[in-house]
Amino acid sequence: MTSGADLSRLSLNTATTKLLTLTEAVDGAARAGYGAVGLWRDRVQEIGADKAAKVVADAGLRVSSLCRGGFLTASDDAGIASALEDNKAAIVEAATVGTSELVFVVGGLGANPGPGEPARTSQDTAERDAGRDIVATRQRVADRIGDLAPFAAEHGVRIVLEPLHPMFAADRAVVSTLGQALDLAAPHPADVVGVVVDTYHVWWDPDLEAQVARAGAEGRIASYQVCDWLLPLAADPLLSRGYMGDGYVDFPTITRWVSATGYAGDVEVEIFNQQIWDTAGDVVIRTVAERYAALVQPYL
Amino acid sequence: MTSGADLSRLSLNTATTKLLTLTEAVDGAARAGYGAVGLWRDRVQEIGADKAAKVVADAGLRVSSLCRGGFLTASDDAGIASALEDNKAAIVEAATVGTSELVFVVGGLGANPGPGEPARTSQDTAERDAGRDIVATRQRVADRIGDLAPFAAEHGVRIVLEPLHPMFAADRAVVSTLGQALDLAAPHPADVVGVVVDTYHVWWDPDLEAQVARAGAEGRIASYQVCDWLLPLAADPLLSRGYMGDGYVDFPTITRWVSATGYAGDVEVEIFNQQIWDTAGDVVIRTVAERYAALVQPYL
Repeated sequence: MTSGADLSRLSLNTATTKLLTLTEAVDGAARAGYGAVGLWRDRVQEIGADKAAKVVADAGLRVSSLCRGGFLTASDDAGIASALEDNKAAIVEAATVGTSELVFVVGGLGANPGPGEPARTSQDTAERDAGRDIVATRQRVADRIGDLAPFAAEHGVRIVLEPLHPMFAADRAVVSTLGQALDLAAPHPADVVGVVVDTYHVWWDPDLEAQVARAGAEGRIASYQVCDWLLPLAADPLLSRGYMGDGYVDFPTITRWVSATGYAGDVEVEIFNQQIWDTAGDVVIRTVAERYAALVQPYL
Repeated sequence: MTSGADLSRLSLNTATTKLLTLTEAVDGAARAGYGAVGLWRDRVQEIGADKAAKVVADAGLRVSSLCRGGFLTASDDAGIASALEDNKAAIVEAATVGTSELVFVVGGLGANPGPGEPARTSQDTAERDAGRDIVATRQRVADRIGDLAPFAAEHGVRIVLEPLHPMFAADRAVVSTLGQALDLAAPHPADVVGVVVDTYHVWWDPDLEAQVARAGAEGRIASYQVCDWLLPLAADPLLSRGYMGDGYVDFPTITRWVSATGYAGDVEVEIFNQQIWDTAGDVVIRTVAERYAALVQPYL
């Protein structure tokens, strides 16, 4: 299906082939003709960042991004210090593995009352009330980005803000739209703070075309990630991502919007999906390539 | 808990007490001191709109809204005609039961490939591709609102656009933000097309404060609906709504934003939640009143 297809900008995010080691994923991607891989820190740390860099380079691939930094919403001193420390380590890792793009999932709210447990009658009402303050939580994200930006710049690494689908606003990311991510990036140089356009998270946004154009004009598109929105949602909604073409996302249209900005970087496929994880790695790598060749590459 | 609390603006949406008949729900709301009820068409149709109007009026309550019209996204002639016919009937029903506010859920995309079924290899690829075109789908919503607005105006009924959480963009509503709903309403008079601010659907929106202010300035806030965002999501995400205080929504803040616009209408509580539906109606009605008195009413 993909014979002759140009896969030079296709990047396999290692989360898509979750059960493969970094070396196995890199080998599979290289054999299939991909141009790059996106790495998760857990797989990098198994062999060390220096060795990971060598594995990828020896295979003739690029590292399109490192996933991930972030979780910046702590309000207590210890939590803030821990977040800064972890993200500085991630910045160093990104530079070491050979990518300038470190994807950030910024973190969610502090409130976590659990279903059916009435917060108003518990001891921690005040803490929970503060934990629900999404405006203040977003300000802490902005503050932490400001703290980290100089360190990232020194290491030649870009903090890449990932707006997550609003379904994850409570527990994973209080940054929910591309426009909001760009507003957070605005105080910083474009090569220090950027954004990722992940179709799964932003396909629904009525302002998407305008914000993609803005992101491109500002030079902040650090990564274009593609996967599909499946229904019904998986029991763990994080795992509802699917192969391009299996769900509701209009890949030709969004890809044209991204391409129209002049974006010339890699197109990373990052799919969390139990059924895909249970499929043989080479089958997954081939299927991703086929769908990319049919639904994305022609519109780049 | 609610003795002495001012419940005059509190409205019980009959979906919250799903198992009660309209008459039972109205009686329960009246006994508990609520000022209004929001009605669903299924419960209205059981006894007829005229009788429903009398039941509510006899109890000394207002009808804050009728749920619901909408589902405007069909692209074929028969689907369009059916949507217009059904919505005209709903408009007449709203006027008959004595409310000017008819809530619209606008409908989702046409594509429905189902998980794991590759759309690209099926016969209906063209149809599915069209079904994924969210830009065109939204235009059809705008067109149908234009078709219906004169009829609604003649009957003194407002088409109330409900932005739904982006989690429902594929299957229920391609209108996902308050700003987008206001853009759709903009060509029409404020008393003909309005919006509902439902905390469940919009709490996450980084632009919420500005768009609530805009909605108020434009005179388009037709309803303020409150319920909480629970995690983990229910197996059917529609049923993940909860009592105020049980989840992540910052009710004091959002209520202040709504109140600052001068909104003086009812505050409707519409909760879809199996556990709440399995609870005795009077317990639900009392709990809603308690949470409203603690978390919403003081900030109006």
